[in-house]
Amino acid sequence: MKKIILSINAGSSSVKISVYSVDVGQRPVQVAEATVSGLTAAPATLTYVRAGKTVSKDKELSTKVHSQRDAFDVLLSTLVADHELAQISSDDEIDLVCHRIVHGGDYDKSQLISDETYEHLEKLNDLAPLHNASSLAIVKACLLKLPTARNVACFDSQFHASIPEHIRTYPINRDIARKNHLRKYGFHGISYAFITRSTAEFLGKDPDKVNLIALHLGSGASACAIKAGKSWDTSMGLTPLAGLPGATRSGSVDPSLVFHYASDVGKLSPSSTKELHISRAEEILNKESGWKALTGTTNFGIIANSDEPEMKLAFDLFVDRICGFIGSYYVSLHGQVDALVFAGGIGEKSDCLRHAVVDQVACLGFDIDETANGAKMEKVVQDIGKAGARQRVLVCSTDEQFEMARSCSEDRELWL
Amino acid sequence: MKKIILSINAGSSSVKISVYSVDVGQRPVQVAEATVSGLTAAPATLTYVRAGKTVSKDKELSTKVHSQRDAFDVLLSTLVADHELAQISSDDEIDLVCHRIVHGGDYDKSQLISDETYEHLEKLNDLAPLHNASSLAIVKACLLKLPTARNVACFDSQFHASIPEHIRTYPINRDIARKNHLRKYGFHGISYAFITRSTAEFLGKDPDKVNLIALHLGSGASACAIKAGKSWDTSMGLTPLAGLPGATRSGSVDPSLVFHYASDVGKLSPSSTKELHISRAEEILNKESGWKALTGTTNFGIIANSDEPEMKLAFDLFVDRICGFIGSYYVSLHGQVDALVFAGGIGEKSDCLRHAVVDQVACLGFDIDETANGAKMEKVVQDIGKAGARQRVLVCSTDEQFEMARSCSEDRELWL
Repeated sequence: MKKIILSINAGSSSVKISVYSVDVGQRPVQVAEATVSGLTAAPATLTYVRAGKTVSKDKELSTKVHSQRDAFDVLLSTLVADHELAQISSDDEIDLVCHRIVHGGDYDKSQLISDETYEHLEKLNDLAPLHNASSLAIVKACLLKLPTARNVACFDSQFHASIPEHIRTYPINRDIARKNHLRKYGFHGISYAFITRSTAEFLGKDPDKVNLIALHLGSGASACAIKAGKSWDTSMGLTPLAGLPGATRSGSVDPSLVFHYASDVGKLSPSSTKELHISRAEEILNKESGWKALTGTTNFGIIANSDEPEMKLAFDLFVDRICGFIGSYYVSLHGQVDALVFAGGIGEKSDCLRHAVVDQVACLGFDIDETANGAKMEKVVQDIGKAGARQRVLVCSTDEQFEMARSCSEDRELWL
Repeated sequence: MKKIILSINAGSSSVKISVYSVDVGQRPVQVAEATVSGLTAAPATLTYVRAGKTVSKDKELSTKVHSQRDAFDVLLSTLVADHELAQISSDDEIDLVCHRIVHGGDYDKSQLISDETYEHLEKLNDLAPLHNASSLAIVKACLLKLPTARNVACFDSQFHASIPEHIRTYPINRDIARKNHLRKYGFHGISYAFITRSTAEFLGKDPDKVNLIALHLGSGASACAIKAGKSWDTSMGLTPLAGLPGATRSGSVDPSLVFHYASDVGKLSPSSTKELHISRAEEILNKESGWKALTGTTNFGIIANSDEPEMKLAFDLFVDRICGFIGSYYVSLHGQVDALVFAGGIGEKSDCLRHAVVDQVACLGFDIDETANGAKMEKVVQDIGKAGARQRVLVCSTDEQFEMARSCSEDRELWL
C-alpha cells in the first residue's frame, strides 16, 4: 500500500517540503515540492512545483513569515489547498513526515517520534541550540496539526555513528567528555548517505564496498571520508562549527581564538574578554564569521567569479582548507579511493571551485576534464574526471529529502 | 673576536642553558650545558655537562626551586661558580644571551632587547600568557643581573612569518582580526629553522630549495610544511593550542567544545557554562587535556609501549592526527617533498610512533627501514627510510639552543 510522505528540511533561512508517493521497498516518487526562502531577508518567497511543473516561483508572501514554523504553516496549507494535488486533499492523507534534524546525539538511526523521544530530542537541543531548534518547532507543529501522521526524526549525525573511537575522541578529560557527551558527531550525514548510495550505483559497486572522499559544500560545508560505505571521518565535530568554513561559520580555528576576540579596549588579554558571554561567542563563530565576514557576501558564486582581493582571499582560503581535508582523508583511506565527490549547492554549481580544488590535489592522481566540468549538471551523478586519470572525480546532486523518504521506504516496521 | 653566548630555553617544567663559544660566521662550539628539571614535580634536579663531560646528573636541589626564574638563578650560579669552566669566571664574561620566546607576534626576526622592546614583549604576553611569561621573567633577571651582556629575543613564531595570507587568515570579522592581531602565527619555529638547515645539508641541497614535512613531536607537538626552505603552513595557530594534541594540550577541537565543557548539573546547555571564566577554559585546554587526560601520564614512552586500551587509544589518536597533517601538507606541497622529518623528544625517541605514522602514510610513497628505525639516533640527521622508496624519511635531533647561537653568529650587527 502506498504512503504519502512529507520530507521536511529546515535550513537557517528556508524550509523545503518534498512530497513523495512511496511503496514499501520501492523508489519514492516525488509528487510535489514547496519551498519558503528568505526567512532572514524579508519578504519571504514561495516556490511551488507540482509533478515537475512550476506552479509558482519566488512568489512574495504577503503574510508575515519570519520563522521556520511560520514557513511550515504556509507550506502545509499550500499543499492541502491545491486541488490539483490529488494525493493530499486533506491533512489526514499524510501518512509519514520525515524531519531532518541536525544533531542526533548518540542515535545511530532514525527514530519514530513519540512523546518520549520528543522529550529526548528537546534535550539534544542543548547540544546544538543554534541548529536543532527550528526543526523541533516544526516537529511540534506536526504533532499538533497532523495527529494521524507518524513523524520520523532523521539525524544529520546518524551516518557518522561508525566513526572509530580514536578518531571521534577528543583528548580531554574523559569523565567530563562522557558526562557531557563531548565527542565528534559529524553532520550532513543524510546527504552523505545519499552520495554513498548514488555514487556506488554510478560506479557499479556494492555500496558497502565503496570508498569515497565526499565534499558537501554549501553555506555549511563539510568533508567526509567514507570507507566501505560507512563514515570513517568527517570534518564537523561536536557541533557543525568545526572543520571547513561556511557562509557565516568560521570552521576550525584555534580553540583559544574566541578568548581573544571580544575586547572593548583593543587589549589582547584573555582577561579582557571575561564580559563576553559564552553563548554570544558561539554565535559569533557560527553566524558572523565565514566568507561573509571576509567579503560581505554569503553568495559564493559572486566570490568565485571576482578578482577583488578580499574575494580572492576567501576563495583561496576555502580551497586550501578543502584540499587539507582531501589530503588527510586520502591518507586515512590508505589511498584506496573510488572517487572524489563534489556535492551541495557550491559543490554542484561552482565549476570554478571544483577546478581549483582538483588542480591543487593533482599530486594524488585526481584530474579534471574541463568540458565535463563546465557542463550542466543534470544527472544525479556526473563524471567530471579526465579520461585515464588515476583517480575519479564526480559531481553528485545530493537530495536530503529524497534520502529521508527512501530510508522510510526500506524501514519495514513503518509498513506493518 | 670570540663571544660567549648563553642560549636559554625555558619550558613548562624545565630550564636549559647551553653555553657556546662563538666567532662571527663560525659554527658555535658548545662549552657547557646545564638543565634544571622537575619544576612542576618537586624536588627539582640539576644536570650539568662541561665540555661533553657530565659533572652532575639529576642532582636533587636542596634550595627551593619552583619557578623558571628560580631555575635560572641556580643555573647561572652553577656556571659562574665552576672554576673549571674557564670561559665564564665572572658574570661579565657573558657577551650575549639568547632567549627562546614562544610568541613573537608580528616580529619576523630576532630582536635585541632594549627597554623599548622589552615593553613590547610584555604586551605580547597578553597574546600568550601561558607561554611567554616564564621566558620574560628570565629576560628581566638577565637585564638586572648581567648588565654588560646583550639580550636577544628569538621567537618561536618568527620562522612562520612566511606563511601566505590565505593560509594564515582566519575567516572571522576582518576589523577585529586586525585590531586584536588574530591570525595563525605558528610556533616551534626555532626548531624548524634548525631542521630545515640540517636536513638540507644532509640531503646536499640548498636550504632555500628544500621542501619538507617536518614534525616536532614533544610534550608540545606540531607539524610544518616547509616550501623552498620557508614555512608554508603549520599546525599551531594564534597560540600553541591549535593543531596536534600534546602531553596536556587538547590540540584542535571543535571551537564550540569549551562552551559545553564545564557544567555543574550535567546539563549540556551552553547557558550552563556561563560561570566558566574564559581564562580558566583556556587553561583546561592547555594544561588539563592531551594524553595526560586520556591516560593519566604525560610520558609518551609509557603510552607507546602499553597494550592498555586507554594507552592504545591515546597512541592511535596521536597517530591519526599526525597523519592527517602529513596528508594535508603533502597536498599543499603538490607532492614535491624532499623528506618527512621526525624531531622533538618523541619524534627522536619513539621508533614505535615513527613506525605507526610511516605505515599509515605508505600510500604517499613513504616507507621505513625497520633496522634503521630501531637504531640509536646519534647523528644530527639520520635516515630511516627504506632503500628505493619513493619518499625519504629522516630523524633530526633538533637543537633550539644551538640554532639561537648559530643565528647570532650570522648576525653581523651583533659583532660590530
